[in-house]
Amino acid sequence: MRQAGRYMAEYRAIRARHGFLELCKNPEAAAEVTLQPVDRLGVDAAILFADILLIVEPLGVGLEFGTGDGPRIARPVRGDADVARLGAIDVDSALGFVFDTVARVKKALAGRVPLIGFAGAPFTVASYVVEGGASRDYLHVKRLMYDAPAAWTRLMDVLVDGTARYLNGQIAAGAEAVQVFDSWVGALAPADYRAFVLPHMKALFAKLTPGTSAIHFGTGTAGLLPLMREAGGDVIGLDWRVDLRDGWARVGHDVAVQGNLEPAVLLAPLPYIRKRARAVLDAAGGRAGHIFNLGHGIHKDTPVDHVKALVDIVHELSDRR
Amino acid sequence: MRQAGRYMAEYRAIRARHGFLELCKNPEAAAEVTLQPVDRLGVDAAILFADILLIVEPLGVGLEFGTGDGPRIARPVRGDADVARLGAIDVDSALGFVFDTVARVKKALAGRVPLIGFAGAPFTVASYVVEGGASRDYLHVKRLMYDAPAAWTRLMDVLVDGTARYLNGQIAAGAEAVQVFDSWVGALAPADYRAFVLPHMKALFAKLTPGTSAIHFGTGTAGLLPLMREAGGDVIGLDWRVDLRDGWARVGHDVAVQGNLEPAVLLAPLPYIRKRARAVLDAAGGRAGHIFNLGHGIHKDTPVDHVKALVDIVHELSDRR
Repeated sequence: MRQAGRYMAEYRAIRARHGFLELCKNPEAAAEVTLQPVDRLGVDAAILFADILLIVEPLGVGLEFGTGDGPRIARPVRGDADVARLGAIDVDSALGFVFDTVARVKKALAGRVPLIGFAGAPFTVASYVVEGGASRDYLHVKRLMYDAPAAWTRLMDVLVDGTARYLNGQIAAGAEAVQVFDSWVGALAPADYRAFVLPHMKALFAKLTPGTSAIHFGTGTAGLLPLMREAGGDVIGLDWRVDLRDGWARVGHDVAVQGNLEPAVLLAPLPYIRKRARAVLDAAGGRAGHIFNLGHGIHKDTPVDHVKALVDIVHELSDRR
Repeated sequence: MRQAGRYMAEYRAIRARHGFLELCKNPEAAAEVTLQPVDRLGVDAAILFADILLIVEPLGVGLEFGTGDGPRIARPVRGDADVARLGAIDVDSALGFVFDTVARVKKALAGRVPLIGFAGAPFTVASYVVEGGASRDYLHVKRLMYDAPAAWTRLMDVLVDGTARYLNGQIAAGAEAVQVFDSWVGALAPADYRAFVLPHMKALFAKLTPGTSAIHFGTGTAGLLPLMREAGGDVIGLDWRVDLRDGWARVGHDVAVQGNLEPAVLLAPLPYIRKRARAVLDAAGGRAGHIFNLGHGIHKDTPVDHVKALVDIVHELSDRR
């Protein structure tokens, strides 16, 4: 999960001086924000500060980060004609600032902890491009899949190609691992995942620079886990809405998993956080290949001391001192 | 699922003359709306027209159905003091109009099809009462569970007691089956379901009038299915985000299931609807104990002819002519 965010005073101080998109595009400031959780919390990896929708800007659909309602797409892509108009994403000229951020972070880390790059998965990015913003039921996306499957495939092809080059650019700049966020794919029926997402995710993972670990993440995916594993990734994300033992068994113990603490637990008192962190570790049973993490992002009202305490608790309980 | 709704012209005609809450409280009009899908679509059961939040009104927390944003609770219940103030729900005096609607529907149906009554499950009703309306992350509910478990238990006790009396009143008035909608329980981690929901659902099912079938429904519950089955119900709802074969195996074939067509499929052309309905029936494999249904409610933009066609397709393919 992106570890920097509004719950940190250090982050809010920088955001007071930069708009969100401006911050993403300023490698010096973005690198500083990327490093904040490493310095403040003592986490075991740095996660690039960026946004899954940066790749949408070069598509020319009118990406805007307003206040309050989240990102908006001024000209949503809804049918054949809209999709036909999309060109390939010129990653190097449009997203070079991200690679610059990666290189700066890498230098500043000087090997302290690894750096994880990331991108949105094609389905999740497409969901914004088609719906025009966040959605509850993804009706426009589903209609595009059902009514215009060739247009859907073309949209996925554009995003798979751009996303692969974007992630490989991060890897070339120094990212040791990459995380692919299919945050909203849990809205789909397994049959739809198999028909409309799985082939494209396979293509994406096949295009990634060999030798780099890829984390495949989603939320609300308890019914999709075996298909996500089939799609690819060295690590499968388990959000909090699935039992870790059960989820790991369903993706197979020959793949690693990350998760799965309920993020709201971080709002509770420390003894309760400890109890719930221990339960996640107990469920993992000391088996190699579990990366402790939250099931999804940190809520903005979370006390930063609770996050720091969680990191310490996990280090203590997993005997990594 | 509630079959009447904005996708039907007949429903919109009645709603033009009545506010939503006013319609629920008018047994003559509510009975008419309940019968509309039976007459227009040829479905195999009538579903009471009502709302899961009617039971909240006698709690005195200020329930309002506005336009657009969905229901609002003016005085959300957030802590010990708020919960302590809640009295038992006087079902007979506050919700007698629902029993009157049931009796009218029952009489009008004259045995044509059975009538299914319903209520919101205590967790889902509590989620509105605590959050103050619909929610994305249910943070207030989770904080109440984690920080004030005794208050949470007291709130659940009030709702279990009221809901049992409410459902038993519907049964006494003539409902042949009841559906318990835990629509938003899929937001919870399995550990939270086990600790904070399961005992209360067990208590609720134990209080229902013996001999009446109970349908236990939720959405986003792929990770909770075995626990929901343990909680109770003769039929477990499977939304569209779980494979029917897999979901049924996980709850056990000794219990019936209902579902699991993706509701967005009804927006697609008829041949595609036929293909997807067939896939659901194929997954059920002709096994006794599958009730064909959508995975959740009908979207308001759904063509009513598509819904009617689906009913015919299911009747034809399941050989019930």
